[in-house]
Amino acid sequence: MLDVDTPVTAVPAISGTTRVYALLGDPIAQVRAPGLLNPVLARRGTDAVLVPVHVTAADLGPVVRGLRQMANLDGMLVTVPHKAAVLALADRVTDRARLTGSANALRREPDGTWTADTFDGDGFVRGLVGAGHDPRGGRVCLVGAGGAGSAIAVALLDAGVAALRLVDTDPGRLDALHGRLSPVYPGRVSASPHPLLADVDLAVNATPLGLRPGDPLPFPVGDLPAHAVVADIIMTPVETALLRAASARDLTVQPGLPMLAHQIEAYLEFFRL
Amino acid sequence: MLDVDTPVTAVPAISGTTRVYALLGDPIAQVRAPGLLNPVLARRGTDAVLVPVHVTAADLGPVVRGLRQMANLDGMLVTVPHKAAVLALADRVTDRARLTGSANALRREPDGTWTADTFDGDGFVRGLVGAGHDPRGGRVCLVGAGGAGSAIAVALLDAGVAALRLVDTDPGRLDALHGRLSPVYPGRVSASPHPLLADVDLAVNATPLGLRPGDPLPFPVGDLPAHAVVADIIMTPVETALLRAASARDLTVQPGLPMLAHQIEAYLEFFRL
Repeated sequence: MLDVDTPVTAVPAISGTTRVYALLGDPIAQVRAPGLLNPVLARRGTDAVLVPVHVTAADLGPVVRGLRQMANLDGMLVTVPHKAAVLALADRVTDRARLTGSANALRREPDGTWTADTFDGDGFVRGLVGAGHDPRGGRVCLVGAGGAGSAIAVALLDAGVAALRLVDTDPGRLDALHGRLSPVYPGRVSASPHPLLADVDLAVNATPLGLRPGDPLPFPVGDLPAHAVVADIIMTPVETALLRAASARDLTVQPGLPMLAHQIEAYLEFFRL
Repeated sequence: MLDVDTPVTAVPAISGTTRVYALLGDPIAQVRAPGLLNPVLARRGTDAVLVPVHVTAADLGPVVRGLRQMANLDGMLVTVPHKAAVLALADRVTDRARLTGSANALRREPDGTWTADTFDGDGFVRGLVGAGHDPRGGRVCLVGAGGAGSAIAVALLDAGVAALRLVDTDPGRLDALHGRLSPVYPGRVSASPHPLLADVDLAVNATPLGLRPGDPLPFPVGDLPAHAVVADIIMTPVETALLRAASARDLTVQPGLPMLAHQIEAYLEFFRL
């Protein structure tokens, strides 16, 4: 894991030789990747810069097509609301991105074509492994079958979990994700409208619950076995009500923030930086 | 004039709120504007960054159209070979850019439309004025009727020179520029295939002669009156053979480099930064 918390004074000096990376989103003001990635690039002496690109859904096509023709632009990061739409703007989509239904990174290949991949789930799994909670062979309950949940589900299955129980209060969304994953990971994926936690090694919140102070818990930590790990994807606040409740029960907790640092690491690998 | 030579440690920290400016050219590795402008922005505390955009002539249209749809991109700088082609990609072109036949800056207006302007000549005139050589009311011989010469010719006429003698060894290019300028600045512009220097206050080299060590002088400094100023647009080397010959004759000299710093100042005004 990259140490993104070390204070840094150097940020990249931009010249004509600097390679450019774009981060596309709408809104854009809140994005954290430029503030995290650029100091890492500067510290490594890499002559590259990540630049925010504010683009609406209506303008995504022309902007991506324009950026693809920029000869010194080697990659794009993609955040809401463009993660699904950007799949159609790449020449090639990795299996996990197609399965997830979204991509958050595109890179220019040596032959000039563009490949889309997703690292939302990858960063999550890297964070777990980095904290000593390798999910391989374990039983997992994943609450939330939206964009983030889909990415984490695919990454957990690719990481070798034995059994993944998907939970969502929206039956349509739940069935859709279950239907996409079951044929690819036969016998390892189940779906349930309610959290079933008694037999799991890892329980994951992939819903927005916990962003606001009054939110209910996404699942009852009291139902978990004593050895279980409770993971949250919420980054702000760092300690959510869910993680506080889990800690109070002496369960191991995995906050959302490490995911971001591990994603930065994954981006650097993907971009061959 | 902005002091671009002061050593600077700060360069812009890029976040999601940073406004973006693009510098378009082909090739791009040699451009100096990012290295000059970004430290100025950082020192002023302006949350904006200039990013190099390498784009071929064939791809200029799609790239500019894409950049125009970037909601956090407020302006573009344009260098060779795109200065003429970019006129067709703006909604509005200033009189001087149309007259010059090229633009090197585009900005987004509050209503979302794009205006193209040129500062190549403006930077030159600002440099002259800043050095105490206001050309207003003077007689000028300008050698070189290409892109740079055209821009400088328009700027000198706009700055109020009484008489501008255009010189170029290519009769077609010379006549074209003379034909464009004469109707707009009646009675003030003449054309000659050879430099006529005996009566001028200012002689300007706007040809590439002086870039290479063995180049002949663009005009014979021995023909100039003792009070004349000799200006060169060549920036590398800073002291050209022309300027050395002029200094040897105790003529006042104006090197090319200040033009760049003054252009940066003009860009900041144009971009309302």
